[in-house]
Amino acid sequence: MKIDVLTLFPEMFAGVFGSSILGKAADKGIVELNAVNFRTYSTSKHGTVDDTPYGGGGGMVLKPDPIFAAVEDLLAQKQLSSDVSGEQASVSSPVDSSVSSDAKPRIILMCPQGETFTQQKAEELSREQHLIFICGHYEGYDERIREHLVTDELSIGDYVLTGGEIPAMTVVDSVVRLLPGVLGNESSAVTDSFSTGLLEYPHYTRPAEFRGMKVPDVLLSGHHANVEKWRREQSLLRTLQRRPDLLEQAELTAAERRWLALQNNQSETAE
Amino acid sequence: MKIDVLTLFPEMFAGVFGSSILGKAADKGIVELNAVNFRTYSTSKHGTVDDTPYGGGGGMVLKPDPIFAAVEDLLAQKQLSSDVSGEQASVSSPVDSSVSSDAKPRIILMCPQGETFTQQKAEELSREQHLIFICGHYEGYDERIREHLVTDELSIGDYVLTGGEIPAMTVVDSVVRLLPGVLGNESSAVTDSFSTGLLEYPHYTRPAEFRGMKVPDVLLSGHHANVEKWRREQSLLRTLQRRPDLLEQAELTAAERRWLALQNNQSETAE
Repeated sequence: MKIDVLTLFPEMFAGVFGSSILGKAADKGIVELNAVNFRTYSTSKHGTVDDTPYGGGGGMVLKPDPIFAAVEDLLAQKQLSSDVSGEQASVSSPVDSSVSSDAKPRIILMCPQGETFTQQKAEELSREQHLIFICGHYEGYDERIREHLVTDELSIGDYVLTGGEIPAMTVVDSVVRLLPGVLGNESSAVTDSFSTGLLEYPHYTRPAEFRGMKVPDVLLSGHHANVEKWRREQSLLRTLQRRPDLLEQAELTAAERRWLALQNNQSETAE
Repeated sequence: MKIDVLTLFPEMFAGVFGSSILGKAADKGIVELNAVNFRTYSTSKHGTVDDTPYGGGGGMVLKPDPIFAAVEDLLAQKQLSSDVSGEQASVSSPVDSSVSSDAKPRIILMCPQGETFTQQKAEELSREQHLIFICGHYEGYDERIREHLVTDELSIGDYVLTGGEIPAMTVVDSVVRLLPGVLGNESSAVTDSFSTGLLEYPHYTRPAEFRGMKVPDVLLSGHHANVEKWRREQSLLRTLQRRPDLLEQAELTAAERRWLALQNNQSETAE
């Protein structure tokens, strides 16, 4: 997979793209990660990439031309031809016109107005060959980028950040870890809270007693079936207490649903 | 504000903590940002920080002792005393016992089981003086960290990442931009999608025509009232189309609610 990130702050990505799982995946050749400064595609003398908004108001807006030019250059590099770059490109998105369908990249705008990113979306993106992320930074985006260039608009959650860089890192990390060969045994089901649809049960490791705080007896018992039962119940309970919204989608047995209803009634009575 | 991040990958933070708004806020002395490798608090010869889970199963679990020791050392540095560190610390959380209330830090565990992070939470955290983030990396956390050390558990969204580092960057970025003196005029309301409770209206900047794609006439008209009306309607429409859940909480006039209901009916009829 090839991943390009268009940003005014490529230096923000060095640490994240070079470390841990992402760095190893790049070293193994499973993914190629590039942070590209789209200021280099400005045609103005001073490298201008934004301007004041039409209609007035505060803030700055990213101009369409440098971002269109940057995306088209990345597509042209990929195609090893120049047929999508330069002055001759048509009004329609390069995705719709000049690029052959098997190499069609996803061009993803990180923005608060985007679709909320989910694990399902990560799985969908992990099946692509080429992702291009566009990151604004405090500025708004000219609407023509949104309407005629991008294929996806994504938001990582309902909070305000200074730019799309950290959100792009978030999506890249979640997608790359799903690529075949990236995760070794060191990173197993322990992290996969959302794969079962329930929150995880509590984990314990050595020491069995730490400053008077003990590991539950059942985990030290060596009784496999009891451990499994305890873990499933803890997972159900934690989901009930913290994220009851997840229970609606989770795969539960009828007995588990009855047990949960009982827990729920007990806690209501206790209040 | 002082922000410490406990991580096994401090090198991931250099680019993000050193650039743009966060870098400037640190340069101005508004925030002190530290990434601390908690492996240095391991008491084992090989710097071990994790171990296999009690009760069996795959994956590794972060041991309690290095993380308790790291947090207590950060608190001791803050207090310029040693009364919360070392062998004498009690079973209860250092937050509850030895630290004076005015300096009580928030100790935040980044994990998928945590409370979903929101702009409201960012505002709450921006009023603190000291935040300590704990980032696991593929491993689970020993439950005693959760129960006896941390004050908050946060998740940035329903997707799986390789570690808590990018989520911690997310929370830090959203909190620091709210600190007085951090944002200048360059970053105004344009980015604040969630402050009005509605998604933003479309932005346009020069050129007025780009490859045949034109800026809407109303924005070029110079008629301020019409511009405002168009923007408000676009903002309402976009929220209706993309995030109707936000409309329930948004502050709308009765006329706006009627207008929205009409738009909604029209689009249903059209389908």
